[in-house]
Amino acid sequence: MNGSGVRRWSATDTFGDDRRHEIQLDDGCGGRSRYPHTWLRNNCQCPSCTSAESGFRKQVICDFRFSSAPIRLQIINNDTLYVKWDDSHESTYDLQWLLERNFNEGQERHENQQVKWTAESFSAIFRSFKYEDVIKSDETLLQWLETLAVHGISMIKSCGLEQYRVKELAGRVAFLKKTQYGETFKVEVNSDATNLAYRSTYLQLHTDLPYYEYTPGVILLHCIVQPESSGGESEVTDGLSVCDRLKETDLDSYKTLSTVPVRWIDRGHDDGYSFHNIYESPVICEDSYGNIKRINFSEHHRDSKCPVSIDKVHIWYDALEKFVKIAYNEKIISTFKMKPGDILTFDNYRVLHGRKGYQGSRLLIGGYLDWDLIKSRTRVLQSQLSNKINN
Amino acid sequence: MNGSGVRRWSATDTFGDDRRHEIQLDDGCGGRSRYPHTWLRNNCQCPSCTSAESGFRKQVICDFRFSSAPIRLQIINNDTLYVKWDDSHESTYDLQWLLERNFNEGQERHENQQVKWTAESFSAIFRSFKYEDVIKSDETLLQWLETLAVHGISMIKSCGLEQYRVKELAGRVAFLKKTQYGETFKVEVNSDATNLAYRSTYLQLHTDLPYYEYTPGVILLHCIVQPESSGGESEVTDGLSVCDRLKETDLDSYKTLSTVPVRWIDRGHDDGYSFHNIYESPVICEDSYGNIKRINFSEHHRDSKCPVSIDKVHIWYDALEKFVKIAYNEKIISTFKMKPGDILTFDNYRVLHGRKGYQGSRLLIGGYLDWDLIKSRTRVLQSQLSNKINN
Repeated sequence: MNGSGVRRWSATDTFGDDRRHEIQLDDGCGGRSRYPHTWLRNNCQCPSCTSAESGFRKQVICDFRFSSAPIRLQIINNDTLYVKWDDSHESTYDLQWLLERNFNEGQERHENQQVKWTAESFSAIFRSFKYEDVIKSDETLLQWLETLAVHGISMIKSCGLEQYRVKELAGRVAFLKKTQYGETFKVEVNSDATNLAYRSTYLQLHTDLPYYEYTPGVILLHCIVQPESSGGESEVTDGLSVCDRLKETDLDSYKTLSTVPVRWIDRGHDDGYSFHNIYESPVICEDSYGNIKRINFSEHHRDSKCPVSIDKVHIWYDALEKFVKIAYNEKIISTFKMKPGDILTFDNYRVLHGRKGYQGSRLLIGGYLDWDLIKSRTRVLQSQLSNKINN
Repeated sequence: MNGSGVRRWSATDTFGDDRRHEIQLDDGCGGRSRYPHTWLRNNCQCPSCTSAESGFRKQVICDFRFSSAPIRLQIINNDTLYVKWDDSHESTYDLQWLLERNFNEGQERHENQQVKWTAESFSAIFRSFKYEDVIKSDETLLQWLETLAVHGISMIKSCGLEQYRVKELAGRVAFLKKTQYGETFKVEVNSDATNLAYRSTYLQLHTDLPYYEYTPGVILLHCIVQPESSGGESEVTDGLSVCDRLKETDLDSYKTLSTVPVRWIDRGHDDGYSFHNIYESPVICEDSYGNIKRINFSEHHRDSKCPVSIDKVHIWYDALEKFVKIAYNEKIISTFKMKPGDILTFDNYRVLHGRKGYQGSRLLIGGYLDWDLIKSRTRVLQSQLSNKINN
């Protein structure tokens, strides 16, 4: 449809390969696009079918005629399709709008834009942003959110030491996700809490809250106090790289970890609130396209009860051993030390994180953000900023 | 193992069907249970392997010896298994604790306790609780939460008209789930909002926020003002019954709706907050056991863009037509009218809800609760109340 000829549009009522009715648009230069009758009628853009303010469908589906057929077709002004239906309803469609929904070329697919990393590439992908820039500039805010989506990890520097910074940062996106540990939580030595993160000992690689069905998408960790001597260093591993390596070297183990359910559990109390969470899910969760959508990994929160038959147990442990060896391989795992005033931000669905043991004082303020809200905000910013550039 | 003989326990190091090492417990009356070596070592209950406070595993998985083998086995006092491992580590396990994890009998499986309903059975399953009882009595609170899990719908009566009641009620469970529509939201005529629920016209059956990956689990709707004349009646349908009927009468259509992805979208603003959500998911979402875990259904929020090839479109609309005819069948759908002071509570993963058009004033205060928090609270209450009864 990018030929040099002038496009003169025409529309025909025809049959698809499945012998079902469809309307075919022809651009006069050999380009064709196809629209099933039912889809077209269901997406009539007239004010009684579609809300002018929101663009949402107003048709009441229990009254919808699924078998509507056109009795008249016409191209108006070479840019609009007019259809009169057999119940006398009339529809008009902007041709450009239709082309964006062209079924010939398949519909828009979500590209997996994630870039995987290892210890070798970590310093190159580990971008930092200045707190003030993220707060003041929509462009920087968008860059940070896009970095989180692509690399799954990013540092915000020079945040100061005020304990509300995590909330303020989240407010630039939407709002914090509250959990049983509060809206924000203090990661420090707390002998009263049941969570093992609240110790000064080595904290092994894990993901947070695997025992939630709706686990937090992104973790924000604001460093307020860090021991000056050695100790307290952060460790991170890109779980997607671990899965890739496992898939390459031992496909059966990958399949085991992505299909055998594990029981994740958290039972205890925090700040007077008692909880008892259980969620069953494999270590590696794939979506229906085979993309990894979430990794669950937490020795602390893996239950001694296994929701599987005994013949799976050894196979599963063999697979876990291989996963762990890759995750802790020095070519895969990265280590760095946060400074007071840093906010480390990372994707809890893909990044395994831990911390070296320490002596003395250490305090982080943590908070969570949901991907639903991050993706929404990213789309809004992309749209606003592209309008700004275009205007 | 319920024989009349006295059980004299013994333990043997043996091989399983998969030729992998396991320990077999024998109760002396013909009862046997089996525990793979690796699982047993990984679940050592000694203080250095398991946290005494929380019961969580303290073993650091990158240092774990996956190939540990016992060099000594002994039953102590006929109630404890003692194991000395080949790295000299010693473990003891309470026999009762082991029996609860017996791999012979398969591990605990989550029973699907949901009871499906139709118009005929609705009045029998639609339980009401008094607000004051839910607030003051843990027993009533638990009954309400169990009713929500089993029937997916329940009414709280005599809540008064104060607009903070939804928040107060949620506080008995945990806390409200905040969304782009706020922590609570007003369902009333609002010409500024983009959401079609904020009109007085007929609101067709739908689920809330299908365009979130982490959609709210339970909806709380507090009726403050309701027209006295006819209009404003609530309509509800148990989506699980709709799916059952569809599966029985047209398995292909059921499979189509449970596999073909749909693009759910919400673009607009509310109270100054702009959002642009997109989530792709079938109408019927099954878990890996084939149980229905979530139904997505909202004509308002179904995008005109389809993430599928053209050959699926007619098939999908045929299936949708069948689903809709069942959902609106008078033997399936139920209608009732909330009174000021009622809080209607229902499972947003299974119940489709709507409202008849009305004239005059109508105001509901809405809020959401997550199933993660409801299930946790239910377990805590069940445990507390059974302890109370036992003590």
